[in-house]
Amino acid sequence: LPRFGTVVIVGVGLIGGSIGLALRSRGLSSKVVGFGRDPAKLDEARRLGAIDVAATDLATAVDGADVAVVCTPVSKIAQDCHRIAALGPDRLLITDAGSTKAEIVRSVERDPRARSMFCAAHPIAGSEKQGASASRADLFDGRIVALTPTDLTPEDRVRRASEFWRSLGAKILTIEPGDHDLALAYTSHLPHAIASVLAGVIPERWLPLAAGAYRDATRVASADKGLWADIFLANPQHLRSALGDFRRRLDRLDALLAAGDADGLSALWAEAKDIRERFAWPPGDSNP
Amino acid sequence: LPRFGTVVIVGVGLIGGSIGLALRSRGLSSKVVGFGRDPAKLDEARRLGAIDVAATDLATAVDGADVAVVCTPVSKIAQDCHRIAALGPDRLLITDAGSTKAEIVRSVERDPRARSMFCAAHPIAGSEKQGASASRADLFDGRIVALTPTDLTPEDRVRRASEFWRSLGAKILTIEPGDHDLALAYTSHLPHAIASVLAGVIPERWLPLAAGAYRDATRVASADKGLWADIFLANPQHLRSALGDFRRRLDRLDALLAAGDADGLSALWAEAKDIRERFAWPPGDSNP
Repeated sequence: LPRFGTVVIVGVGLIGGSIGLALRSRGLSSKVVGFGRDPAKLDEARRLGAIDVAATDLATAVDGADVAVVCTPVSKIAQDCHRIAALGPDRLLITDAGSTKAEIVRSVERDPRARSMFCAAHPIAGSEKQGASASRADLFDGRIVALTPTDLTPEDRVRRASEFWRSLGAKILTIEPGDHDLALAYTSHLPHAIASVLAGVIPERWLPLAAGAYRDATRVASADKGLWADIFLANPQHLRSALGDFRRRLDRLDALLAAGDADGLSALWAEAKDIRERFAWPPGDSNP
Repeated sequence: LPRFGTVVIVGVGLIGGSIGLALRSRGLSSKVVGFGRDPAKLDEARRLGAIDVAATDLATAVDGADVAVVCTPVSKIAQDCHRIAALGPDRLLITDAGSTKAEIVRSVERDPRARSMFCAAHPIAGSEKQGASASRADLFDGRIVALTPTDLTPEDRVRRASEFWRSLGAKILTIEPGDHDLALAYTSHLPHAIASVLAGVIPERWLPLAAGAYRDATRVASADKGLWADIFLANPQHLRSALGDFRRRLDRLDALLAAGDADGLSALWAEAKDIRERFAWPPGDSNP
């Protein structure tokens, strides 16, 4: 039986498309409506089976909806939530998939109606690929979705958001919005920034001499530029503090190299190796 | 028909073991001798099918050999080449698998006998895993092997080394030893150093919030510590210059973040993405 009635996906890219595929392949909703401004992209999402119907008018899209999932770029999410709240029915659950949370939550909570409908979320899953064509029904399978409710979030919206994301295969981790943004600055924004900086300093003429270490360390550098500029600027202080930590450790490595200190280099390497080996992927599994 | 007669593998870890597996699975040699100091490791290599016989005495190992491949840590390779040249027959080809080349070539070339047998090589293939148990018969398939002959390298040793590595499935790229070390400082040593620094600054308590970007950007940080301290210290100047380039680009990113410059961040990202998309893996294939 459909559990979520009509679900509106606002922004049908990789994340929105994957949510649609997961809902439809699991029979979790009676109807999946895709909302966006580009009819060609909505057509593609429909062709791929990610949505049942397309809408380019937001009032039409949210009319009679039970759940709205906002999958637009982080700089647009709060504004989209405000508009959806104003147009949607009282029972609507609004959740989102933004990679940063504090600013979005702060903005949504200024509006009592939006606040009464909203529980912020961040699925810790993605790809360097873009668009609905890169969508996968199993994108959230076994992955963490961070929920960042506050004292102002209605309990029933927390429960419904938790059920929604869990039904897509995800595991829920509840965390305060600011703590989320600090942690993600280190676990996601920093690795993306570093991958891009690294890809930018290795001259193209030497790429035939690059192999697996290069390939993996720079993979996410081929993600969408606008997307990442947007995420970085939604969390600049925390990211700059992570970059500062990174630079200090880089300086230690450089000093050990300058000194020819083999034992120091081994110790620095061992310290990082030890942390890396505690990483389990997918969550709960053993080290890859 | 066996093409290489007796091949001695000096140091039967991931690389040496994979050479043995490739030789034996392709029937390229009449005998593969594994040389090392640890009988337990040699036993394991024999059990895995990477070698036919084990030897813990170098004179016995190289007696009657046609090819010796030195797969020991970079800081030991030159010394091993000198010893092998002194003990082996005149016809012997000595090649190696070291990740740095200039210092090794310089040292080997000081000895006329070793020089007359030696053609330096670096297979651009590997893994963060260690030991013969991580060996794969296809490790070199479609991969680049850099050969770094000089004016002093006998032409027949260049030809034989080239045939040897190509028979394992590799493609040959010939490059001057110093150029090799400069290029590899950027394409391999820098990504390894950065992966380790990154893994070292992300607090363990936040790892449940890490996903694919973290996993890939830090994968090689779990490689052997001694191995990489060794490689870094065999090429410190070039690596420090790569780290300097990296730091300057990191500073540009940080300044753009401080200024809240979305266009600047997008442009910096796009520049790196453009280089990354020219990377083909495996060599000649399309972007992964």
